[in-house]
Amino acid sequence: MLLSNAYHLYLRPGLEIIRSTGGLHQFMSWDGPILTDSGGFQLFSLGKLIKVTENGVQFKSHINGSQHYMTPEDCISIQETLGADIIMPLDHCLPHDSDPLELKKAVIRTYNWAIRAKQAHTNTTQSLFGIVQGGTSIPLRKEAVDSITSIGFPGYAIGGLSVGESADLMYATLQATTQLLPFDKPRYLMGVGSPEHLVQGVLMGIDLFDCVFPTRLARNGALFTDQGRINIRNKQFKVNTDPIDTNCNCWVCSSYSLAYINHLFRSHELLGYRLATIHNLHFILVLMENLRTAIREDTLKEYSKDFLDRYQSK
Amino acid sequence: MLLSNAYHLYLRPGLEIIRSTGGLHQFMSWDGPILTDSGGFQLFSLGKLIKVTENGVQFKSHINGSQHYMTPEDCISIQETLGADIIMPLDHCLPHDSDPLELKKAVIRTYNWAIRAKQAHTNTTQSLFGIVQGGTSIPLRKEAVDSITSIGFPGYAIGGLSVGESADLMYATLQATTQLLPFDKPRYLMGVGSPEHLVQGVLMGIDLFDCVFPTRLARNGALFTDQGRINIRNKQFKVNTDPIDTNCNCWVCSSYSLAYINHLFRSHELLGYRLATIHNLHFILVLMENLRTAIREDTLKEYSKDFLDRYQSK
Repeated sequence: MLLSNAYHLYLRPGLEIIRSTGGLHQFMSWDGPILTDSGGFQLFSLGKLIKVTENGVQFKSHINGSQHYMTPEDCISIQETLGADIIMPLDHCLPHDSDPLELKKAVIRTYNWAIRAKQAHTNTTQSLFGIVQGGTSIPLRKEAVDSITSIGFPGYAIGGLSVGESADLMYATLQATTQLLPFDKPRYLMGVGSPEHLVQGVLMGIDLFDCVFPTRLARNGALFTDQGRINIRNKQFKVNTDPIDTNCNCWVCSSYSLAYINHLFRSHELLGYRLATIHNLHFILVLMENLRTAIREDTLKEYSKDFLDRYQSK
Repeated sequence: MLLSNAYHLYLRPGLEIIRSTGGLHQFMSWDGPILTDSGGFQLFSLGKLIKVTENGVQFKSHINGSQHYMTPEDCISIQETLGADIIMPLDHCLPHDSDPLELKKAVIRTYNWAIRAKQAHTNTTQSLFGIVQGGTSIPLRKEAVDSITSIGFPGYAIGGLSVGESADLMYATLQATTQLLPFDKPRYLMGVGSPEHLVQGVLMGIDLFDCVFPTRLARNGALFTDQGRINIRNKQFKVNTDPIDTNCNCWVCSSYSLAYINHLFRSHELLGYRLATIHNLHFILVLMENLRTAIREDTLKEYSKDFLDRYQSK
């Protein structure tokens, strides 16, 4: 499943263009599933460029400073135009260290906006998920789970984690929140993450993740291996004729040496970024495949321990 | 056939690394043919970083300023290590507006170096071509053709054109030089070029070309169409749901709109450069295929006129 962002696409290239090409699937020539995030996280990262009222969000484009206004209803309408398979309601996402009363207000606002989103949502070919906010406060997360699940959605996302809090605090919040979510609906941890976080998330009952981590890392030369991350730019790889990961059977590892990819990065050759991206995505897809197999075979704990021991060995 | 550059690869990543991975084909994981240029053109573009004697070229690396020395024999040895299928001797390539006596000396030096290259060349799996220099002086070109062909090579390259001289002067020189070359050996016009130049070159009897033009242009957003070049960044393409060229059946034109590729370029998304490159290379490969068909069917003049009329119509 590809993830796209409603906020980004609304600003550039704009809805008219995507509508006229027949929707996001056709625009990107991608016939697999697409999930669009509402852009709540991106909006609330704009800092002083944003003004929130109960009705919606007023914001300035980060591209050209133009003024915009988005309500929970607009956000659904935008995502209906984009035509993704799973869509997300507008939520109020605060920094993890926000004032507790502000966090509480954001939970209530996210609840009110979720009701309006569900009312506005009429396209039955798209699944609208609910989003649980509440920072790292477990009582607030409980309140958010209760209110959002009371509306009823086909899947539930946990937002507002992996936004700068410590790993321990994230895991504690995640553990407590996931336990409260319905057992029979997919649970989606937004904006996560690294191989370690994916494994921990699955151990806690998460089904779905999204993150720029594997591809952004790849473009910076950081590559996943069974034994942890390496940076392909390092001098030691200049003369290493092994593949990135001798245990990996991706196209890149079957075809190219560390020395070649190191050379591409040193020469700023675009192929380097592409090879690195393909390898990292393959690594993540195999990891998730292995986690699914381990769940089916009831060996999840052993598999996870083995993986983490190896991955964190360096 | 892929072209690589001996000078560039000698400096980075260096011969040791390519030797240890089993040669250039394996290093790049490319099992098609490879031609390596000697790097004569690149060396003589270094300006003050170079000192030429009869024995060879002393130069400073354009990457880190380190001192190097290359003889015609070294140049063959480097290309034997790289393991390309067609290799080129070290030649002395001067600016088109050089002093006539300097041009004459360069022709003689290129001749002497070609003899030494042929003597040093022992790997019978590689074809060593000869290179004809002489600027835009037709008498000098004749002298160069006579001397280089007297050594005897399986193919002949014309160097020192498309280096800043006018198109008329290039065509006049090319016309005169090509006529003098053996009819039964491949003729290779180095560093050319644009669709117009390819067509004109073929009309004058050229068989082989190399140029960064299609891929460099693509990365700058300039795309070939039957009706001439367009720049994908232009505002007008923002809302155009047509493919780059409605007459093109490449993968990019079958899958993506101008609007999408425009969006990728505006977002600095690496996929944009890749799609543009694939399209431009496809355009050139189809053009060359059509030229070969036209030669077989004895319709080269008509095909070329039609192509140029359409391509230059804008």
